[in-house]
Amino acid sequence: MRAERGILIVLSGPSGAGKSTVIKSLMKRRSDIRFSVSATTRQPRPGERDGEDYFFITREAFDELIAQDAFLEHAEYVGNCYGTPAAPVEKDLAAGYNVLLDIEVQGAAQVMAKRPDAVSVFLCPPSLAELERRLRGRGTDSEEKIVGRLKTARQEYKLLDQYAYIVVNDDADTAAAELDAIITAHLCRSENRIQFIADAKGEELS
Amino acid sequence: MRAERGILIVLSGPSGAGKSTVIKSLMKRRSDIRFSVSATTRQPRPGERDGEDYFFITREAFDELIAQDAFLEHAEYVGNCYGTPAAPVEKDLAAGYNVLLDIEVQGAAQVMAKRPDAVSVFLCPPSLAELERRLRGRGTDSEEKIVGRLKTARQEYKLLDQYAYIVVNDDADTAAAELDAIITAHLCRSENRIQFIADAKGEELS
Repeated sequence: MRAERGILIVLSGPSGAGKSTVIKSLMKRRSDIRFSVSATTRQPRPGERDGEDYFFITREAFDELIAQDAFLEHAEYVGNCYGTPAAPVEKDLAAGYNVLLDIEVQGAAQVMAKRPDAVSVFLCPPSLAELERRLRGRGTDSEEKIVGRLKTARQEYKLLDQYAYIVVNDDADTAAAELDAIITAHLCRSENRIQFIADAKGEELS
Repeated sequence: MRAERGILIVLSGPSGAGKSTVIKSLMKRRSDIRFSVSATTRQPRPGERDGEDYFFITREAFDELIAQDAFLEHAEYVGNCYGTPAAPVEKDLAAGYNVLLDIEVQGAAQVMAKRPDAVSVFLCPPSLAELERRLRGRGTDSEEKIVGRLKTARQEYKLLDQYAYIVVNDDADTAAAELDAIITAHLCRSENRIQFIADAKGEELS
C-alpha cells in the first residue's frame, strides 16, 4: 500500500558504529528513502556541489533562516554553521518518501523537540569494548582520536533514553533489516492510515 | 539480538480478511511466535485436546478465574464462556516469545485496557467491497451469512481507532511481512532494551 505520508527518521550513533554501511544496506532494501541536504556557511570543497552535498549559503542567509525558524536543527562547529532546512524535508514527506536524517545527538534532540512525529533510532555497537576493537581495527585513527571517539560515544550514551529505538549493529545487514522493519511498521501505524480509515468507515456497499 | 522479553500482539480483523492465511505466512517467517490457548466452559468436540485446542474447564473454575482477575479478556457466547488466561501468556513473554492473540474487537479492547504494552493490529481487507467479493468467491456462506459478516465488519470498523496498526491485506505475504516488521520494530524499542541500555551506560573500558 502506498504511504499516505513518509516517515521522518532521525538516526544517531557513535562514530565507528557502522552507520554508513548500515545505511548503504538499507538503501538496497528500499527505494523510498531520501536524505536531507544540510545548509552550511562553510566554503565548498573541490568537487562538492551546491544543493547536492550541501546548500552553500552566506552567514546572513543562515541567520535569516534561523530567524524564520526554518531549520529542524542547527549548530555551529569550528566557526561554520550547519543546519537542516525544514522545507525540503516536508516536501519529501508529503510526496510519500521516508526522510533519513543522519545526525548527532544534540541535533537529534532539537529535531525531536520540533517534530514529535519523528522516529528516532540510535545505532549502537554491541558494546563499547567492541567499538574500541573496531576503531583500532580500521587502523586509520591515531590513539588520541580513538580515545576521543570513545569518550564521545560515552557522552552520547547519556542521551540514549531519548531515542525510541535502539538498533544494535552486530551485523550490518541485520541492523539494516531492523531499520527497514521500523520504517515499515511506522508506515502501518494508524496515524499514517488516516485516509484509509476514513474511507473504510465511510464506504457504502451497493 | 535475543529479545529481553517478547511482544504481546493483539490481532483482530473481520471474517474474510484472510487472518489465518496471514498468520500461516507469518509463522514461516519467524519461529519466536506462540499462540495463547483459550479457556472455555464448552464441551470438547471430537478430536479436541485439553491444553492444546482449549483448556476445558467447568463454569465454577471459570468464575473463580474471573474473581482472581486471571483473564486478559473473557466473554460469554451462546451460553459458553471463553477467556484468555493471563499466566501462560506472561510465561511465554518472559521466556522471550512473542505471543499472538487472535481476538475479536471487544476482547481486544479488554486486553488493551489491561495491558497497555500490547501491540494492537487490525487486519483489513482493501475495502468492504473487496471483502464482499472474497466472501462470495469462497462459495461457502449463505447469502444471509455474507450479509451478516459484512454487517459485523462494519461494526468492527467503528473500533478501528483503538488499534495502533492497520495492516491492509491486499496480498497475504505482504501483510505477513508487515506484521513481521511490526514485531521486529517493537523488539527494537528502547523499553525492550532496558538491560542493553543499562549495560551500555555502565560499561567500563579497560
